[in-house]
Amino acid sequence: MNQWHDTSLPIKERAAALLADLTLEEKAHQLGSHWPSPKNRVDDLEGNVAPMEDALNQSGDLNAEAAVGLGQITRNYGTAPVTPEEGIAQLRDLQAFVVERSPHGIPAVVHEECLTGFTANGATVYPAAIAWGATFDPGIVEEMAHAIGDDMATLGVHQGLSPLLDVVRDYRWGRVEETIGEDPYLVGTLGAAYVQGLQEAGIDATLKHFAGYSASRAGRNHAPISIGPREFEDVILQPFEIAVREGGAASVMNSYSDIDGVPAGASRELLTGILRDRWGFDGLVVSDYWAVSFLHMMHRISEGPADSARLALEAGLDVELPGTACYGSVVDLVRDGRLDESVVDTSVQRVLEQKIRLGLLDPDWSSEAQGAPVDLDSPRNREIARRLAEESIVLVANDGVLPLAVAKVALLGPCAAEPRTFMGCYSFPNHVLVRYPDAPLGVEVPSLEQALRAELGGAEIRYEQGCPILAEDRSQIPAAVEAAKAADVAVLTVGDLAGLFGKGTSGEGCDAVDLRLPGVQAELVEAVLATGTPTVLVIVSGRPYSVGAFADRCAAIVQAFMPGEEGGPAIAGVLSGRVNPSGHLPVGLPDHPGGQPGTYLAPSLAWNSDGISNLDPRPRYPFGHGISYTTFDLSDLRLSSEEIDVTGSVEVRATVTNTGDRAGAEVVQLYATDELAQVVRPLKELIGYLKVSLEPGESRTVIFDVHSDRLSFTGLELKRVVEPGTHVLSVGRSSEDRPLSARLTLTGETRIVPEGRQLLTPARLG
Amino acid sequence: MNQWHDTSLPIKERAAALLADLTLEEKAHQLGSHWPSPKNRVDDLEGNVAPMEDALNQSGDLNAEAAVGLGQITRNYGTAPVTPEEGIAQLRDLQAFVVERSPHGIPAVVHEECLTGFTANGATVYPAAIAWGATFDPGIVEEMAHAIGDDMATLGVHQGLSPLLDVVRDYRWGRVEETIGEDPYLVGTLGAAYVQGLQEAGIDATLKHFAGYSASRAGRNHAPISIGPREFEDVILQPFEIAVREGGAASVMNSYSDIDGVPAGASRELLTGILRDRWGFDGLVVSDYWAVSFLHMMHRISEGPADSARLALEAGLDVELPGTACYGSVVDLVRDGRLDESVVDTSVQRVLEQKIRLGLLDPDWSSEAQGAPVDLDSPRNREIARRLAEESIVLVANDGVLPLAVAKVALLGPCAAEPRTFMGCYSFPNHVLVRYPDAPLGVEVPSLEQALRAELGGAEIRYEQGCPILAEDRSQIPAAVEAAKAADVAVLTVGDLAGLFGKGTSGEGCDAVDLRLPGVQAELVEAVLATGTPTVLVIVSGRPYSVGAFADRCAAIVQAFMPGEEGGPAIAGVLSGRVNPSGHLPVGLPDHPGGQPGTYLAPSLAWNSDGISNLDPRPRYPFGHGISYTTFDLSDLRLSSEEIDVTGSVEVRATVTNTGDRAGAEVVQLYATDELAQVVRPLKELIGYLKVSLEPGESRTVIFDVHSDRLSFTGLELKRVVEPGTHVLSVGRSSEDRPLSARLTLTGETRIVPEGRQLLTPARLG
Repeated sequence: MNQWHDTSLPIKERAAALLADLTLEEKAHQLGSHWPSPKNRVDDLEGNVAPMEDALNQSGDLNAEAAVGLGQITRNYGTAPVTPEEGIAQLRDLQAFVVERSPHGIPAVVHEECLTGFTANGATVYPAAIAWGATFDPGIVEEMAHAIGDDMATLGVHQGLSPLLDVVRDYRWGRVEETIGEDPYLVGTLGAAYVQGLQEAGIDATLKHFAGYSASRAGRNHAPISIGPREFEDVILQPFEIAVREGGAASVMNSYSDIDGVPAGASRELLTGILRDRWGFDGLVVSDYWAVSFLHMMHRISEGPADSARLALEAGLDVELPGTACYGSVVDLVRDGRLDESVVDTSVQRVLEQKIRLGLLDPDWSSEAQGAPVDLDSPRNREIARRLAEESIVLVANDGVLPLAVAKVALLGPCAAEPRTFMGCYSFPNHVLVRYPDAPLGVEVPSLEQALRAELGGAEIRYEQGCPILAEDRSQIPAAVEAAKAADVAVLTVGDLAGLFGKGTSGEGCDAVDLRLPGVQAELVEAVLATGTPTVLVIVSGRPYSVGAFADRCAAIVQAFMPGEEGGPAIAGVLSGRVNPSGHLPVGLPDHPGGQPGTYLAPSLAWNSDGISNLDPRPRYPFGHGISYTTFDLSDLRLSSEEIDVTGSVEVRATVTNTGDRAGAEVVQLYATDELAQVVRPLKELIGYLKVSLEPGESRTVIFDVHSDRLSFTGLELKRVVEPGTHVLSVGRSSEDRPLSARLTLTGETRIVPEGRQLLTPARLG
Repeated sequence: MNQWHDTSLPIKERAAALLADLTLEEKAHQLGSHWPSPKNRVDDLEGNVAPMEDALNQSGDLNAEAAVGLGQITRNYGTAPVTPEEGIAQLRDLQAFVVERSPHGIPAVVHEECLTGFTANGATVYPAAIAWGATFDPGIVEEMAHAIGDDMATLGVHQGLSPLLDVVRDYRWGRVEETIGEDPYLVGTLGAAYVQGLQEAGIDATLKHFAGYSASRAGRNHAPISIGPREFEDVILQPFEIAVREGGAASVMNSYSDIDGVPAGASRELLTGILRDRWGFDGLVVSDYWAVSFLHMMHRISEGPADSARLALEAGLDVELPGTACYGSVVDLVRDGRLDESVVDTSVQRVLEQKIRLGLLDPDWSSEAQGAPVDLDSPRNREIARRLAEESIVLVANDGVLPLAVAKVALLGPCAAEPRTFMGCYSFPNHVLVRYPDAPLGVEVPSLEQALRAELGGAEIRYEQGCPILAEDRSQIPAAVEAAKAADVAVLTVGDLAGLFGKGTSGEGCDAVDLRLPGVQAELVEAVLATGTPTVLVIVSGRPYSVGAFADRCAAIVQAFMPGEEGGPAIAGVLSGRVNPSGHLPVGLPDHPGGQPGTYLAPSLAWNSDGISNLDPRPRYPFGHGISYTTFDLSDLRLSSEEIDVTGSVEVRATVTNTGDRAGAEVVQLYATDELAQVVRPLKELIGYLKVSLEPGESRTVIFDVHSDRLSFTGLELKRVVEPGTHVLSVGRSSEDRPLSARLTLTGETRIVPEGRQLLTPARLG
């Protein structure tokens, strides 16, 4: 037996042994991927696919790409609506081809997208990532990711290109729906939960987009990032560090964009210095699709494909996806002396380590997927999708109209009858099926109309669309107004339809010029409100939209962030009262349509109301906000000590009580404010949270263990420090509503915090 | 005679001798300023002054502030509507008091604002700085500044707090009107021209705001600056370096805001490292008003006034303005050992050098101003103001309706009858007089209505306001519509009314949430356009507003950037054809109201139309655009060499021809595109320009001497480099319309460019 097949040896040793045995050609082929031709892809894509995708989304030549082996296989299931059985068969053939061509019989890693679920035909569509943020519940996110991973593993997949850990900085960005929100700690902790869930199922998670993508100019996709090193470190990098060091993520994907002129895909500082040297990351760095080509095509920092490959490899980008457009030149680069073979070896070693860890080089490896028939939308999945959706829905405002207790309901608006509005841009239906006009949805997705009819058996429900999501068609507004007039309550649904490359109102390439509701939906809102019928505004969206113009006139506002295939029943359950809402906003709901970029993580000068600027940047509903059908009281904030050393810890306790008459859950949020620091600091930042379920009248103590590291920041000299001085710790229900606060004094000298700091604030019930 | 009075000795020697003779108390008093109580200030300012100003805009105690001397006197003329004679008398008393209290008889430096002219009652109101940018003519800016300086010198003033060299990065920022535009080279060269003009008159210019202010989050005043070192160096710092090294500016003022957490006023890297150590600046750094206090009040990086004083002085901020709120603690700081006296000495030495250079310590110095009676709005001034206004007006679009040749004109809109719309926020009327409800304007400012009636003697002109600038009053729109219907042409004026602290639509503290015309003006535009009467849209504004919604339906568009007291005749002259417009846009006119921040200095990823983002970031009319009543042809681009060394220079020639039938002026613009670089570079940047006046049929050769330094940029290692490779040099009429281009190849090895590089591209006629 070859050493690399010997499962008793350490992975690194097996990989090194195999590496030493590979020719340069074999090594080079381990660094690229092959995208199989989509089956049954419709020929005429004109008008459906953007020019960029048209140009780049070409399948490579399998014979060339896998001539002497292959690193990865790109989206065997996530490209066209194949059945699981068809996909399994195709994958088996592909792997057999790869293994046969490889002199050492090395199979390929199979990767797929999996953000809102396994992006495969018929697989469960879970809520979008922004909805995970609204749950403030790492447990349910981990559970979902584990279920996703199980399905992927069943079908022979090894790596999932999720989660996104981009911290929202501009609500206009189309990919806000794919993020977990605007707070680095929330993004980091929920992101790590996803990583753990997926990897528990044996699937390698891929953190993306490393790093800075979300802070692009004007929120435009791929636009440059203007950011300084402190903000980059404390906001952008924080969640990645959590997911690497606490989540144990196996893979990282570069961001497309450039930070102050340096594209992430060519940044050795980022891909090696920060990721590996500082954080100890030991896994695989893969490129975002075509990102290596973009180094010459768009960033213009390289001469062409070969030069781009050199830059990326030297930076520490191990594997090119989705094909081999640039890394196909690796052999030539080494032969010509433009690239040191040791650079190639370093990346190939990582590829081989991954493959060995995944069992691909075990003697008993087989590409055949397990079990058949395969149900990718199992009852277990649907149950998780339903719970997650229910937990994610945010009751933003309610004058008592909810839960609905009326005879006649006017259900209005474009999101009530179109199931696709519940699904993110990376769901299979929105990502792939939109190109196959005749394909069925693949999963059963009850519309809100169907769900509400089921939920409110006794009520009379009249549905009117009112207007489309995007098109400027006002012809149906009068019918909606008529329906509202005739009803006791209007339930008005507005929001997004996700798409790709500008084909939707949210999603990749679907950026917004401002935060008005898309199309003429704001006009529909005004028309319905003008009837005087109490109106419940249900926003089903991927990004927050400005509500200041009409918030005060709505009887209630429900924010559902693309809640997935079970979104209809979940929203209906909240409306009926069957579900007691417990979601909290992972992004603010803005007052004005303009005013981006913005974040609650702002210093006093960005928040002043002293006339320095005429405009108040605060949103209408702040980060962390969310109400319930019961009420919660916060009391008895206690610190184990009012004074700790700059190396110390403090236990923070607060009591949360359900003071209403039904069971519910509250998100107890812990914020810190640094009153005086060597650099300008935000007025407050979330440093801990815990979602607590309480029966009526029940009280629980929430305990946060706050290490002084959690009060650190990147200081004047660009080193992470903890300073002596006073911090205000506050506990509340949102970033603005923090009824409890106490001062904590840190003593000693300013401490430089070494790598490996405490990243988390453990929270538990006492 | 004391050494410091000996005019035969070098300034530094005189200052050092005096410094050595001062007590610590005397030194400390040289570092602050005193703001005299406003005369006749109305008591009840409620509703007119923002809380911040109310709290801070307090006059200090002269007895304390000038107890043993005084550094500066704050706005003796620019605080209340005194007559020149009253101001001279008050200043004489103040200086006598200061000199008498100072054991060494040291007078104070008198500073005033002077952006749109000397900010004194009755002084000429010149066009706003953004209008200077539109002239692309350093000569006229220098002439204006010289005239401003002459008037200030006549009244005993020594230092003027202008110009702004902030490069526009977000059109929503209220202070856009105070800037020279969005291109660093245009800002730097016109800014340097202003500096030279003012200083030729003996007045020290003050560059502000050093640095980064304009790049604040969402364009909000004082909000934090997210920026990396390359963008900061190449965009933000460039104009300051030009004005320091080429303009010889005597003083610099810090920016309020923080850059990646470090407030400029406490940044030694900025105020000493960059400014003095790198650029060799030898003058005085003064604080923006209350900026030292803001270090504790808003930035929260200091414990209080004394600590803020320490931070600012150690950073290199020599003099606190407008009072002594923090620097009043300097003596205590030194006595307590918290501040080294050598730090104080360094700043006092600079103060004394300035005073000696200004002649304040010459034996024959007298505080009495020269000459009486004083006319601060002389015919010479008005003539310069008129020429500058005429040169600054941009003819944006014209279907032939202009010059006006019709019998019946409907003059509409709020800017045609209100002279204050012509004046910037720092003009005396808008800055000071607004607080004195009964005060007269001080200067004669013909409205556009008056000017147009004078200009179009024969035509019938009916004026209707239509709507106010800001208030949501639609009641007069029907009258405007009526007037439009009855006319041959409608001239519709819309735009801004400048104010302070949120009391205007443009100006300091008057930020915009988006780029829609303020108030209901866009509705007025729609209503007038709907009449079908050919409409000339005249935008009188401090910032660019979005015109995409109606640009195609206007017969002509004229953009007047707050053209000053002669703005009415200047605009009327353009409308009538007496003046052939030659202004070009120093900022783009946006298509959409959203989409900020934006700049024409964008790399390809921010400009792509490949579906990567659904939104096209390009403005409706680009930077540099402007048409004329004649036409110009550009031809015969010739490079003295197609290949130069990375240390070399090239002479670029192009021919510009007036191909129409009347005299006019064209701005010939030279742009460079770096096709391949080690970091991501803009698709194009302005590297030279020349405004050329041509008779009908006349041709001239424009010659640009381009040094390789002008193709340098801040590279990967944060050093300025010139790389070998190809640059495309293009010549055009705007940043988008560049009909001529040629390739220039640089040979040799990548060169690190030392300090003292060539900053300018000399341009001349052949």
